[in-house]
Amino acid sequence: MNTDADQPRAFLATIPKLSYLLIFLPVVIVLKIAHADPIAIFICSGIAILGTVTLIGKATEEIAVYAGPLWGGLLNATFGNITELIIAMFGLVAGPTMYPVVLASITGSILGNLLLVLGAAMLYGGTKYQTQSFSRTGAHVNVGMLWVTLIMLSVPTVITLLPQVDPVFVEHPEWASTFVQESSLTAAILLLILYGLTLVFSLRTHRFLLRPDVEHHETAEWSKELSAGILLGATLCVAFLSESFVGAIEHMREAGTLQMSELFIGVIIVAVVGNAAEGMVAVWVARDNKMELSFQIAMGSCLQVALLVAPVLVIASYFLASEPMSLTFSLFEIASLGAAVLVSSAALNDGESNWIEGAMFLAVYLFFAVVFWFHP
Amino acid sequence: MNTDADQPRAFLATIPKLSYLLIFLPVVIVLKIAHADPIAIFICSGIAILGTVTLIGKATEEIAVYAGPLWGGLLNATFGNITELIIAMFGLVAGPTMYPVVLASITGSILGNLLLVLGAAMLYGGTKYQTQSFSRTGAHVNVGMLWVTLIMLSVPTVITLLPQVDPVFVEHPEWASTFVQESSLTAAILLLILYGLTLVFSLRTHRFLLRPDVEHHETAEWSKELSAGILLGATLCVAFLSESFVGAIEHMREAGTLQMSELFIGVIIVAVVGNAAEGMVAVWVARDNKMELSFQIAMGSCLQVALLVAPVLVIASYFLASEPMSLTFSLFEIASLGAAVLVSSAALNDGESNWIEGAMFLAVYLFFAVVFWFHP
Amino acid sequence: MNTDADQPRAFLATIPKLSYLLIFLPVVIVLKIAHADPIAIFICSGIAILGTVTLIGKATEEIAVYAGPLWGGLLNATFGNITELIIAMFGLVAGPTMYPVVLASITGSILGNLLLVLGAAMLYGGTKYQTQSFSRTGAHVNVGMLWVTLIMLSVPTVITLLPQVDPVFVEHPEWASTFVQESSLTAAILLLILYGLTLVFSLRTHRFLLRPDVEHHETAEWSKELSAGILLGATLCVAFLSESFVGAIEHMREAGTLQMSELFIGVIIVAVVGNAAEGMVAVWVARDNKMELSFQIAMGSCLQVALLVAPVLVIASYFLASEPMSLTFSLFEIASLGAAVLVSSAALNDGESNWIEGAMFLAVYLFFAVVFWFHP
Repeated sequence: MNTDADQPRAFLATIPKLSYLLIFLPVVIVLKIAHADPIAIFICSGIAILGTVTLIGKATEEIAVYAGPLWGGLLNATFGNITELIIAMFGLVAGPTMYPVVLASITGSILGNLLLVLGAAMLYGGTKYQTQSFSRTGAHVNVGMLWVTLIMLSVPTVITLLPQVDPVFVEHPEWASTFVQESSLTAAILLLILYGLTLVFSLRTHRFLLRPDVEHHETAEWSKELSAGILLGATLCVAFLSESFVGAIEHMREAGTLQMSELFIGVIIVAVVGNAAEGMVAVWVARDNKMELSFQIAMGSCLQVALLVAPVLVIASYFLASEPMSLTFSLFEIASLGAAVLVSSAALNDGESNWIEGAMFLAVYLFFAVVFWFHP
Repeated sequence: MNTDADQPRAFLATIPKLSYLLIFLPVVIVLKIAHADPIAIFICSGIAILGTVTLIGKATEEIAVYAGPLWGGLLNATFGNITELIIAMFGLVAGPTMYPVVLASITGSILGNLLLVLGAAMLYGGTKYQTQSFSRTGAHVNVGMLWVTLIMLSVPTVITLLPQVDPVFVEHPEWASTFVQESSLTAAILLLILYGLTLVFSLRTHRFLLRPDVEHHETAEWSKELSAGILLGATLCVAFLSESFVGAIEHMREAGTLQMSELFIGVIIVAVVGNAAEGMVAVWVARDNKMELSFQIAMGSCLQVALLVAPVLVIASYFLASEPMSLTFSLFEIASLGAAVLVSSAALNDGESNWIEGAMFLAVYLFFAVVFWFHP
Repeated sequence: MNTDADQPRAFLATIPKLSYLLIFLPVVIVLKIAHADPIAIFICSGIAILGTVTLIGKATEEIAVYAGPLWGGLLNATFGNITELIIAMFGLVAGPTMYPVVLASITGSILGNLLLVLGAAMLYGGTKYQTQSFSRTGAHVNVGMLWVTLIMLSVPTVITLLPQVDPVFVEHPEWASTFVQESSLTAAILLLILYGLTLVFSLRTHRFLLRPDVEHHETAEWSKELSAGILLGATLCVAFLSESFVGAIEHMREAGTLQMSELFIGVIIVAVVGNAAEGMVAVWVARDNKMELSFQIAMGSCLQVALLVAPVLVIASYFLASEPMSLTFSLFEIASLGAAVLVSSAALNDGESNWIEGAMFLAVYLFFAVVFWFHP
């Protein structure tokens, strides 16, 4: 079997269809040089990111074949959310006025994976199969981790409300801001430790529990060097595109031409761009009754954002940004995160799904999307 | 077998005992003509409503025998909470000062069915049987739906608090009221869609899951025409009685002779009057170990109020009332609803019940009843 | 077999090693006479309490052998948290300025048992066994009870926030304080009733459910008289030591030499001192795969504090203290209690545990310990 794509046509055949959207990359370059309307750059960058993300996913899978299940799993876990991380990093560097958008994109990734992707998978799969199942123990551990994450992410936000209600803080409002920073950093460190432990759990001590029916490619389609080269190249493309994407949002903000609320941009648009590629795979496989795989893609992506991306951003802000970014979400983001975890917790802990549970997830997603849209 | 109740005595034998309370209907008429003390009208209307509701239940069951399980189920689902709907409609027409009572009656129906009815059923059944069981999948779907409902019902209320804590809204308090209305309407529409989907789920795609051991009458005791006639007549009676009932509350409010807090009237009294008939059946059958039936009566009634009655009222208020009614409950109502869903979620998701779980439900109900009583 | 410890050496061999810490009792007496630094008295009393608690545990177990399972269980249940109760009583008598510490010690006992003890047991046991199990029904009932407790403990605190958000209370702030007291007393009475019902449930109607693999000593090592004597003596010692312990905290408060926030002292230090002895047993037995026993020690201790100690303190404050103590925790205590119950609820309801669930519990405990430490 020819594993080296030496012929262009054979190589193209192995590329995921969605990657063709990369032709929007030169469009973005031209638009940037021509100082075109930020809205056009915003849209084209978004589309091109979608294409690049698909390519990164494929390249990671290829390398995983060579690296074996353990390192392959680790690689997959790390590169799975590299796009969110890069977009957010550019937001961070852009300064404190962009922090709400950065935080909103974290909220959006969690909401999008849990409610939109998993909900669509459960609905789409459930219209064909009456009941679909996945590992109950896996669901339990993951939902438990979601609760821990939610608790740590929401305490700093709650602290920002203290000067309004607690007499001690009414006199010393500056205490609250120090307290918020201390608790954000504590949360970030503990979340990173939990991320490390999760890897040990899922790749070492309890592998069998979490990956019972996930299938792997047996043979690689690309050579080791080609895969590594594409991974590197695509990551650089994403970096460039993310810069354009975030820059366009900033320009629209400054020019006052942003037609949507900032919350809507961050929570809905940015998150959909960053997670669409993976998300579509999750919905697709549900139709083949591979609910376990759907569940792991959506939940894995969601937990990586919460346990890896969010804390890395908080810690990185101490070095890269002009001032530290704390985990101060808006009240509605905390409410929507709480709702997402609650609904997941209620629906997933029996290890079974059906179409109406999917419909519930989508209804909650839609509800908060509308609320974020109308948010003044 | 004689299905036509052509002889008065035979007919009377088929009528549920509780319907005899309908003799309070003429009493109410006399009291109203005599402009009697509103408290007397209030009490007599309440008792007469109880009797009428029982008759509506019986007539619906009879028609269901002719209509077959699908349409019968739909009919049952729709007429099950017609009383709450009619009482609330009269409240709506009475104007904005009655809105808190209308909303409180929604809270009360949910609390009453979940905590009081289901709790009493679990306690009463549990003193005879060590463990009683019901469909775990049914419990899961229903509890999940309760969470979705709670989320959508509480967001508008949370928004009303924003002007106190969020600097953006402190400057523009009028933004909050528009936002409350938009989110209420969104919630109402999504809840109605979910109600439709629930019917499809429970009557079409997953009937077997939710109704495994529910027994149906094999033969009808009344003719089709008699059943339809009684259903129509009883519904008209309920309409008249509800108007008296709500009117009496309004009069007492204006005269300042209301001995109880408005919250207590709405949440406890109105809800008990509207749900007592069905509730007693649910508690009764638990003693015969038909816990599945108890569970479905209580949960079904509770979800109908949340998914059908509440959104219909919000939407109807745009046409019937002088100003739209938003879903702005008091903080305590949201707290009690949250508590009810939490406790249900914790106790029901294993598909088993015992007497101490029933005792917990009743303790939480009692606690909030006392809190509503003492509420200034 | 010689059940009477007539020879000192044989008697000493039957004493738990940790009891030797009682030699700090004379040290405390000397320090008090010498009016030594409160910090020294604080530390030595803490250590001596640890020793005494172990002795009380042993004596209770011995008496339980004579008393039979029913009364023995009742005795165990009652004396299990006698230390917390005595410490808290002294805090109560010391007056309203000590109430926050008393309430914090209740929070701390619940957090400590649920998150620290159970988390450590799950982690320590989980490093040896891949999955450990315990009664699912027991977990369900206990977690349900935790939710009921959390609801009742948090409503009075929520009421204290009303004057900041509810227009009705803004005009009449004194209404809130009456309302807080009424709801605290209601909660206390209902919790005590639930405690009584829990005893009936676990010792009478559902004994088999909750104690499947708990082993009992077959023969007593001490005589009846000796056990009773030691129980009495040790309880008196705990009373004396608690008075020193609480007194030392008060002195440090007044002198302003308290290096830690009051919340940290109450929630972390006092709770660890009061629960360490029992807690270590729970962690120990998890390593022998007796997870059911670990679970029952931790959960039992936690529920006793919530259902017995907390309400007894509220009611006792009407007789012993200068003014009634209401259940007004700080916002962070309620948040941490909510977090603890949430995480327990998510992780325990399948009746299985593994090391990463233990790690999650400890992470949440650590997070709140740090938050309490930094709390201004």
